Amino acid sequence: MSDTARTTGENTTTPEPVTVTVIGLGNLGQVLARTFLDQGHKVTVWNRSQDKADDLVARGATLAATPADAVAASDLVVVCVLDYTTVRALLTPTAAALAGRVVVNLTSGTPDPARELGAWVTGQGAAYVDGAVYAIPQTVGTPEAFVLYSGDEEAFAQYRTLLETLGSAVFVGGDSGLAPVYDVALLSGMYGMFAGFFQTVAVGRAAGIEAGKATELLVRWLKEAIAALPGFAAEIDAGDYRTETSNLDINAVGLAHILTATKDLGVGVDLLAPLHTLFEQQVSEGHGAESMSRAIESLR
Amino acid sequence: MSDTARTTGENTTTPEPVTVTVIGLGNLGQVLARTFLDQGHKVTVWNRSQDKADDLVARGATLAATPADAVAASDLVVVCVLDYTTVRALLTPTAAALAGRVVVNLTSGTPDPARELGAWVTGQGAAYVDGAVYAIPQTVGTPEAFVLYSGDEEAFAQYRTLLETLGSAVFVGGDSGLAPVYDVALLSGMYGMFAGFFQTVAVGRAAGIEAGKATELLVRWLKEAIAALPGFAAEIDAGDYRTETSNLDINAVGLAHILTATKDLGVGVDLLAPLHTLFEQQVSEGHGAESMSRAIESLR
Repeated sequence: MSDTARTTGENTTTPEPVTVTVIGLGNLGQVLARTFLDQGHKVTVWNRSQDKADDLVARGATLAATPADAVAASDLVVVCVLDYTTVRALLTPTAAALAGRVVVNLTSGTPDPARELGAWVTGQGAAYVDGAVYAIPQTVGTPEAFVLYSGDEEAFAQYRTLLETLGSAVFVGGDSGLAPVYDVALLSGMYGMFAGFFQTVAVGRAAGIEAGKATELLVRWLKEAIAALPGFAAEIDAGDYRTETSNLDINAVGLAHILTATKDLGVGVDLLAPLHTLFEQQVSEGHGAESMSRAIESLR
Repeated sequence: MSDTARTTGENTTTPEPVTVTVIGLGNLGQVLARTFLDQGHKVTVWNRSQDKADDLVARGATLAATPADAVAASDLVVVCVLDYTTVRALLTPTAAALAGRVVVNLTSGTPDPARELGAWVTGQGAAYVDGAVYAIPQTVGTPEAFVLYSGDEEAFAQYRTLLETLGSAVFVGGDSGLAPVYDVALLSGMYGMFAGFFQTVAVGRAAGIEAGKATELLVRWLKEAIAALPGFAAEIDAGDYRTETSNLDINAVGLAHILTATKDLGVGVDLLAPLHTLFEQQVSEGHGAESMSRAIESLR
């Protein structure tokens, strides 16, 4: 029996029940609160529109009358609202209740407001952790989801097991603004991929190909092409752009052909032309035989 | 024993040996010729620089003295050179030898040159199939690789089993220019993803984050975000952009914040600003509550 416990323990660890407040019950906040309830924690919730809490209250959550009551109810306060201005507006009246608590702010945002909020929260005697969630609501609480955290590492470590129930928890550094930097960086990458998707679909549609058909093949191709990215990153980190394969000359010519063919089909090329400009700039500076990854040196 | 043969037969099918010529021995051509040799086919090769054939000849390939000899040696001629102009220059002197053969052209290109080449090859009494390869040399001959074909469907069907050894073979239509249309479409998607990658790395670097670290997380996030594309494609095909989740208003504001934060970090936003322009245009036309996929309607 002790053997069984030891064998299965690692996969079934449930964090010790804690008191946790979720402020903001949009798509993500709903899922967070439900996940915490499922884990057996004592959950308090607050939302501007109280009816958003009905289902959670039916599942055992306590609805707080004010943000200050919500903060006072728990050791851990998870905030999940529209933007940092809203976070600050909600937390300011709770200042007297903040001391000694841990605030984990999962609101999407940019580095400077995160640092300002972190400094203010810390000034009230609470610990501040900023988080950026990489998940769609359906994958929160699954291994595909991950959340980047930055700020107070001790507070993060204290609630790490609990936070892992949302998705794998990755601590990226002590600067509160770091998780939002990663957020800007990774969402930029996502929007680039979306821009490429729109271009794929537009070219296909111009030739009578359904978006679904083109996308099925695009998904297949992107999954393979993604494998090239770590190699590019290694070249960039090393500052060593020598290559035997796909150099800037080849990509500048290839992309130029693609842009021409796209225009011939009557589709605009605004989304991709700026990348060609980066390639051309590196080629004109004499780096045509070097890796495509060197285009980063023109991105300033 | 017959049971064993039956059980394993599907996985070990070797196509009937055929005579196949590979013209052009760059990275891809080398791998193609080697794969055909490994399958037991009678392989003839030709390349402008003959020394590229040394290894293949050592493995049993025949080196042809001229493209005409190369064409005359085989029923199936696979061409894999730099561009369509080169293909045409190489094949023109072989015109007398082409009748009755199948030409599969794997040269990357755009739709119109493919159609012109197809018409010319057909005019010589040969069948023409245009192909676009989605593989890096390391994955040719593996299930990750795939090749899109268009043109003469009967000729494709005749050699399908052989062609499947390069990667899964997908026939996209009878118009020779269709595989190159897909090529333009899918490579556009890839370059969009690369543009996003550069943006991710540039933002990270500006905040002191190594490219490798940012890319590790980007790869993880893109693999999840890709799952959104088929849903967007379905909305586009249906022309029904109603959504409960991530609408144009949210994405226009979110992307604007990202661009601002990127500029604050001293990084240019030329690669992503055009996507924001598409979002804004749809919002200004009154579609802010509809799906982000509706941006396609501004991409003309």
